Amino acid sequence: MQEISEAVIDKIDRYWQAVNYLSAGQIYLQANPLLRNLLTPDDIKPRLLGHWGTSPGLNLIYVHLNRLIKDTDADILYVCGPGHGAPAIVAHTYLEGTYTELFPEVTMDEKGMLKLFRQFSTPGGIPSHVSAHTPGSINEGGELGYSLMHAFGAVFDNPNLIAACVIGDGEAETGPLAASWNSVAFLNPARDGAVLPILHLNGYKIASPTIFSRLDDTALSELFKGYGYEVFFVEGEYPHNVHRQLSSTLDIVYDKIRKIQYNARAEGIIHQRKWPMIILRTPKGWTGPKSWNNLPIEGSFRSHQVPLAGVKESPEKLQALEAWMRSYEPEKLFDEHGTLNADLRSISPVGNKRMSALPYANGGLLLKDLILPDFKHYGIKVAHPGTVEAESTRNLGKFLREIFTMNAANKNFRLFCPDETNSNRLEAVFQVTDRCFMEKIIDTDDKLSPDGRVMEVLSEHLCEGWLEGYLLTGRHGLFPCYEAFVTIVDSMVSQHAKWLKTTHEIPWRKPIASLNYLLTSHVWRQDNNGYSHQGPGFIDTVVNKKSSVIRIYLPPDANTLLSVMDHCLRSKNYVNVVVAGKQPELQWLGMEEAVAHCEKGASVWEWAGNDFGEPEVILACAGDVPTQETIAAAEILRAHLPELRVRVVNVVDLMSLSPRAYHAHGLSEEYFEDLFTDAAPVIFAFHGYVRIIHDLVHGRPDPARFHVRGFMEEGTTTTPFDMVVLNQMSRYHLAMEAVKRVPRFQQQADEFILFCEDRLASHKEYINVHLDDMPEIKNWRFKGTR
Amino acid sequence: MQEISEAVIDKIDRYWQAVNYLSAGQIYLQANPLLRNLLTPDDIKPRLLGHWGTSPGLNLIYVHLNRLIKDTDADILYVCGPGHGAPAIVAHTYLEGTYTELFPEVTMDEKGMLKLFRQFSTPGGIPSHVSAHTPGSINEGGELGYSLMHAFGAVFDNPNLIAACVIGDGEAETGPLAASWNSVAFLNPARDGAVLPILHLNGYKIASPTIFSRLDDTALSELFKGYGYEVFFVEGEYPHNVHRQLSSTLDIVYDKIRKIQYNARAEGIIHQRKWPMIILRTPKGWTGPKSWNNLPIEGSFRSHQVPLAGVKESPEKLQALEAWMRSYEPEKLFDEHGTLNADLRSISPVGNKRMSALPYANGGLLLKDLILPDFKHYGIKVAHPGTVEAESTRNLGKFLREIFTMNAANKNFRLFCPDETNSNRLEAVFQVTDRCFMEKIIDTDDKLSPDGRVMEVLSEHLCEGWLEGYLLTGRHGLFPCYEAFVTIVDSMVSQHAKWLKTTHEIPWRKPIASLNYLLTSHVWRQDNNGYSHQGPGFIDTVVNKKSSVIRIYLPPDANTLLSVMDHCLRSKNYVNVVVAGKQPELQWLGMEEAVAHCEKGASVWEWAGNDFGEPEVILACAGDVPTQETIAAAEILRAHLPELRVRVVNVVDLMSLSPRAYHAHGLSEEYFEDLFTDAAPVIFAFHGYVRIIHDLVHGRPDPARFHVRGFMEEGTTTTPFDMVVLNQMSRYHLAMEAVKRVPRFQQQADEFILFCEDRLASHKEYINVHLDDMPEIKNWRFKGTR
Repeated sequence: MQEISEAVIDKIDRYWQAVNYLSAGQIYLQANPLLRNLLTPDDIKPRLLGHWGTSPGLNLIYVHLNRLIKDTDADILYVCGPGHGAPAIVAHTYLEGTYTELFPEVTMDEKGMLKLFRQFSTPGGIPSHVSAHTPGSINEGGELGYSLMHAFGAVFDNPNLIAACVIGDGEAETGPLAASWNSVAFLNPARDGAVLPILHLNGYKIASPTIFSRLDDTALSELFKGYGYEVFFVEGEYPHNVHRQLSSTLDIVYDKIRKIQYNARAEGIIHQRKWPMIILRTPKGWTGPKSWNNLPIEGSFRSHQVPLAGVKESPEKLQALEAWMRSYEPEKLFDEHGTLNADLRSISPVGNKRMSALPYANGGLLLKDLILPDFKHYGIKVAHPGTVEAESTRNLGKFLREIFTMNAANKNFRLFCPDETNSNRLEAVFQVTDRCFMEKIIDTDDKLSPDGRVMEVLSEHLCEGWLEGYLLTGRHGLFPCYEAFVTIVDSMVSQHAKWLKTTHEIPWRKPIASLNYLLTSHVWRQDNNGYSHQGPGFIDTVVNKKSSVIRIYLPPDANTLLSVMDHCLRSKNYVNVVVAGKQPELQWLGMEEAVAHCEKGASVWEWAGNDFGEPEVILACAGDVPTQETIAAAEILRAHLPELRVRVVNVVDLMSLSPRAYHAHGLSEEYFEDLFTDAAPVIFAFHGYVRIIHDLVHGRPDPARFHVRGFMEEGTTTTPFDMVVLNQMSRYHLAMEAVKRVPRFQQQADEFILFCEDRLASHKEYINVHLDDMPEIKNWRFKGTR
Repeated sequence: MQEISEAVIDKIDRYWQAVNYLSAGQIYLQANPLLRNLLTPDDIKPRLLGHWGTSPGLNLIYVHLNRLIKDTDADILYVCGPGHGAPAIVAHTYLEGTYTELFPEVTMDEKGMLKLFRQFSTPGGIPSHVSAHTPGSINEGGELGYSLMHAFGAVFDNPNLIAACVIGDGEAETGPLAASWNSVAFLNPARDGAVLPILHLNGYKIASPTIFSRLDDTALSELFKGYGYEVFFVEGEYPHNVHRQLSSTLDIVYDKIRKIQYNARAEGIIHQRKWPMIILRTPKGWTGPKSWNNLPIEGSFRSHQVPLAGVKESPEKLQALEAWMRSYEPEKLFDEHGTLNADLRSISPVGNKRMSALPYANGGLLLKDLILPDFKHYGIKVAHPGTVEAESTRNLGKFLREIFTMNAANKNFRLFCPDETNSNRLEAVFQVTDRCFMEKIIDTDDKLSPDGRVMEVLSEHLCEGWLEGYLLTGRHGLFPCYEAFVTIVDSMVSQHAKWLKTTHEIPWRKPIASLNYLLTSHVWRQDNNGYSHQGPGFIDTVVNKKSSVIRIYLPPDANTLLSVMDHCLRSKNYVNVVVAGKQPELQWLGMEEAVAHCEKGASVWEWAGNDFGEPEVILACAGDVPTQETIAAAEILRAHLPELRVRVVNVVDLMSLSPRAYHAHGLSEEYFEDLFTDAAPVIFAFHGYVRIIHDLVHGRPDPARFHVRGFMEEGTTTTPFDMVVLNQMSRYHLAMEAVKRVPRFQQQADEFILFCEDRLASHKEYINVHLDDMPEIKNWRFKGTR
């Protein structure tokens, strides 16, 4: 390793001053970008927004990584945990030329610099946070906690990539970040790239000190050594001193990473618990104003956002701002056109080696379509509806197994799942791959190896974050999860949906594979658990996201599940939520019918009703258990009240209910009325909370006629049928409600209701003695024929 | 310290066998509870449910803690992270007599034992997880990750309490649990109790090995030393050996805790980074069946749930089960009545010292009402609506300050907030208290001390979990949070709501203080941030919970916020969500009017409209920004179309919109029609996603007439007015929509719409140049008079 020369250090320092200058300029200036004149209040933006505090540190790391890339030609992805430091990252992408390539109006001269300043954090401009708008970014960082898991997700199966992940000491306090340190237990140095965590301790959050910044080096070393890292400290307040430390430390850690990879790839030594990481201690708001009114700014929480507020109004503050900004000597950094001096430009990499232009950070550029087998080969034979049982997810497992096989060479598909692949009955995948694990493997372990492509960790956060990082860098994946516990990542999927929505508006962001969820072990069949495991609320979280991004499917049986999953795995730029049970359940549709049904989104199941084209009441359903109860209800009605004209409608694509103005999948007005008429009462059995249906049909003819049954937070450890009884969604409840809604049957209604209530009472008596469902329910098969 | 005698060890071991026996019995038996006869298939339950794997470890810890309590008379709370080990915990509460005291039908004899077995995990019985039904529990553990934060929350301000927190090695992989280790940075040994973490490494989750179980002792010691703990290992497969280690280790760590407390309380040495913790390595499913079909069960993932499935069907398995259960020698543990032998009973504490009867674990028993000042003293003077500005949360801060003062002696109120107390403008509280911090405090810190009652940590999970633990043990608190990021705890509040709903049905669970949220820095005024910070989805999460538990308030100004918050802080057993802005905003109601308005939940604001009792169109609103836009819209309409009869309705209690059948706060049908008529079109400006309103009015007269505007996922860093424009909720959008809905104005409508569109175009032009809102918007004041 060669010592970095003082000349290079000096250049690094001046480049750093240039990006610090541009960071401050974005926060404050709307004119006079190069300070060619004395600052006046008119030069100052009317609303001072942005976060200065983290910016000098982000800039420092960035410029030093530039030097490393230049020297090594490495592919380095900059993952910016403190995403509020957008002024820093944007400044770099600008100096590297990437910004101007993508946004030609922001030229690399004085005029362009002014545009850069004015657009920051202003209407019609760019956000105050690193986001999809920021070239080179895969991580927004507006919601803290996910940088390190994104970094690991990015380097899985990308052996040549190093993700340099800057973690703020604020972010380090979050749970998801804390769990992320464990990711080394799943990182295989032979097949994956490397993550270089850089924990930046600048001491303060918005107002409080950070925990980690107050720990001494011994405690920090122990902590991270325990997690599997070797810590390198860089610390100081004197720039040149820090530059020297940081550049030589980066050389050291880079060599360590390459050595680990060499050992793994050439020597087969893959067990590794000494991944290098850097802890960087520098002052918050470094190089900014030292103090105001005898209160410290630099090195304190007061530099978090805008260190001198009210500059426009206060001549003294204006002067202080001017002194600060002139301290960078912009006239020595930029030439007469406002372009960075040529000698400084030489420090950044060029072309795709620029972190702002790295193809990995625009994953769609690298995306290869997933190779999919013909899902129809995995279909379940259904001669007559409701007569055979199958476990939908177990069957899906065979399809997934084949996907692993067919894409083995591309190394671009993984399953991410919180230790539930078997529990969710997808175990067929273990015929061709294993669970991934890098720690000690012992005899009692099963299907476990460093090369496994099933990522199991008991953290929904990690599953989600790894998968997001994997997708954002151009690969494919699936997240099978217990339905109730996927709400643990509610806020994460919201942020990912925001990211996707934003990329839809950015032409240079190429489409990436959809974020696909398979929610199983769902609310209605938590046979082995109970109330804590019963929560269908994820649908509610997702349904609120931008309609151009989200799709929600409730396949009622195995064949519809195959069709839906095939569709989701081919799609791009969506969040697809698929809800399907894992238990043995009656099968309704043959494969051809299933495909046709899924294409329509919803259709009448003629064989289940008898409406003669003019239904008096419609039984609608979405979800596997609601479908079963609905068909049973229709059968009961036909047996007892054969004159009643009942129609059964099944909805597989939930958003098809929405008026088309609100969602592209919305059924046309004509087709909606073909299914639901414009006036017949609809008894709707829904998998989740009833609210969603109430909302989706708002804007459809007479929404008040939709009477929805769903999960009403009545749950415990009980039998499957008792669950639908507790929530008043059983076949008897649906049938009673249907009869009540048809006036011409009021005479017969009382008797029929007595019958239904008697069956419900029998059920209660029966399970009290037998601790199980009545045979008439448990062994029920659909008897109707087409 | 005295060596534990072999006689005591032996007794511990036999007691442990008794609870292991009862744990297995709950999973398998519906008859023959004491194995007086040979087991037959009929003795076996029809559905075998429950989790054996964790149970022996939970039992081991429990019985040893019993011994410690007997010897020291300590108050120890057992927090059971692996909540799926209910068979274990329930068995202990039964042997201690608590169960029979609370559920007299479950007697302490053979008949009662059979009831205990049959009720477990069966319809009409008890859940398969530790839950509110379980005496002594404050933590369900169905959703893993929260045990350690609950434990810390429980001991804050409870100096005599020790929370022994069992953490499974699965749970330890979750993010929230990982963040919880940092809680020692906030635990003051002088004023708080202690937490004793017991990390139980039994090696496996459902199917995979756990990360921590595969780390060697050195790595584990370093890791937790880094976090601030001194680790004591207990490890083995031979019961007596483990008993000896564990009992002496418990004596050691107990003395360490008391020594730390003595040093803090008597000597003033409060800085502490050597809290004791135990790492216990014992086999999963210990003492259960060793193997089946040559595959290991004990010590492997195969013991996770029911170690021998299909016992009813397989004579061989039945025999294996019998051999296993007889290995505990029930005939030597229980007397001829089926009661635990007297010599063994002597090992458990009695009365309130029993962990199952600890008053702390039924917090309502200890709850003292919060002392509240008269909130009206903090009212804002509002002579005319919409003419003065105030920051609602800053004003609320004064009320909160006084609450701290008035309850200082009771030490039962804290604020939990992710480093945002100042940002949320509640800084008045810092006049009387500080932020709590136990690490090094330096000169640049502000309002920071070990005695502070404001708990700031950059983890919404920790804030939520600490607060839950604090409330569940009988205290009060408030969680002020950025609205978007509170969705990080979506799943946690769902679990807490489930807990509360369940306790409503359990008479011996006494009411606890409500879980109160103040959501501010909300979607409409994220002036300094952007799209990532714009998300009102928490309302959607909460609204789905059981209606008897949840309340949601959207006070439109400072006085309504005071009234609402006073109400929430007095209430019990609810989840109260209050959404209110922190920015300077126009004030509408004087204090008396505010109180009256809040009592009604919603009312007509006559002064804002001109409907002469017969509105042609209704402008309704919920939320501060929607209210401002609605009143401005009404003013525009009055100025341009004075003949149009417009009514303004404000909704402060969101659930008042719901039909009363679905929520107790639902307005009566009569009053609803008084407000909204039964036919007039309603243009509803809502703070959050429109879906909620579509749902809430379902069941009200003609829901299709409600046209809702709200957040439609259009966000970025921009001006306040631009945000409402982007989401089509601006005054002009509302006014245009209103006019379109009144047929008799169709002639004037075109001209009026042109006017509105012109103003919107002017807005766009103006901000492009000025980077700020137009003065006509920014300086708008309401001009109407009453």
